[in-house]
Amino acid sequence: MAKQDRAVRTRQQLIRSAAEAFDQGGFALSSLTGIARGAGVSSGALHFHFRSKQALGAAVETAAVGLLQDILAPRPGDRPAPLGNLVDTSHVLARRLTEDVVLRAGFGLAADVTWRQDVALWQVWGGWVRSTLTQARSEGALAPDVPLEDVISTVTAAVAGTQALARLDVEWSPRYAVAQFWNLMLPRISAAMVPLDRACQTAPHE
Amino acid sequence: MAKQDRAVRTRQQLIRSAAEAFDQGGFALSSLTGIARGAGVSSGALHFHFRSKQALGAAVETAAVGLLQDILAPRPGDRPAPLGNLVDTSHVLARRLTEDVVLRAGFGLAADVTWRQDVALWQVWGGWVRSTLTQARSEGALAPDVPLEDVISTVTAAVAGTQALARLDVEWSPRYAVAQFWNLMLPRISAAMVPLDRACQTAPHE
Repeated sequence: MAKQDRAVRTRQQLIRSAAEAFDQGGFALSSLTGIARGAGVSSGALHFHFRSKQALGAAVETAAVGLLQDILAPRPGDRPAPLGNLVDTSHVLARRLTEDVVLRAGFGLAADVTWRQDVALWQVWGGWVRSTLTQARSEGALAPDVPLEDVISTVTAAVAGTQALARLDVEWSPRYAVAQFWNLMLPRISAAMVPLDRACQTAPHE
Repeated sequence: MAKQDRAVRTRQQLIRSAAEAFDQGGFALSSLTGIARGAGVSSGALHFHFRSKQALGAAVETAAVGLLQDILAPRPGDRPAPLGNLVDTSHVLARRLTEDVVLRAGFGLAADVTWRQDVALWQVWGGWVRSTLTQARSEGALAPDVPLEDVISTVTAAVAGTQALARLDVEWSPRYAVAQFWNLMLPRISAAMVPLDRACQTAPHE
């Protein structure tokens, strides 16, 4: 392996080890010694790549923003219906947060009062939810009586909540919770589904 | 003031000062010296009441559970309709979380990876949401096509999410977000409101 490849690989291992440490024990109590050991490198090698824990935190957050942007990026040539895209993407995000410690640590850092340098991840997610729902409204896909700002706020908070509870409760499945949320919410906000699907054909009382 | 009253008051001041420290900087980085200073007492007085920061964390959490139980307790002689009670109570909780640093610090500790001793607060909230919605179902107040477990999960997560985002984003108003959530969700889950209120009288497309 060329020297430069090795350097890139060591850097990635350090970011991953830092993400594991932050995810498990928070930013404040994670030690550079432990992070170097987790990456299988010396403390000297760590300091060659990152001059401080702060720099490692920023690198984890930047890596997580990149992973999130990949999840949100439109596929070339693909123009999905906005509500379907929102549902699918929130499922992908919930799954990736379960699987990918760097993505999870990035969101964890954003909520960590001992870090709190940046909330770029939530801004990226919130901004994408806003633009996707604005597109849904302009295409007539949102039910007419549904205020755009209410849906934006509720969808943004729902995904934050399913993640927050996943950190607190080992029984809680964010992937299942996202499905439950959409099961309730989609008929309410969608112009196409509500009238045919339920209220007019269902007795109002059990 | 009698000696015992003074002791009770000092203890409460210490709990409040600890809550302020945990809320601002997290459990791990809060110092006993700073907490004693914030309460206007000596370090010796702090150690007379609490032998460790762990003991102070537990006291803040216990105080927050008491505050939450007061919010959730039924008023004597009052038998509110369960869905209305759920909406009203979630508004009260959002307001109290803004105003009361002990309640807020309790929920903050539950999400703090450097503490994480207990998740009693979320269990109390989640259990109350479950029993209130179970009552709504048994009284026929929930729309028949709405799965009970989906509503329990979504309401529990929505309130967690509005709080989580409040910690991340100074622009975010949890009180307003709770209103937006119910504006969307109530017509969807309520047996009484949906059919009259919207789908049958509204054109399906804009």
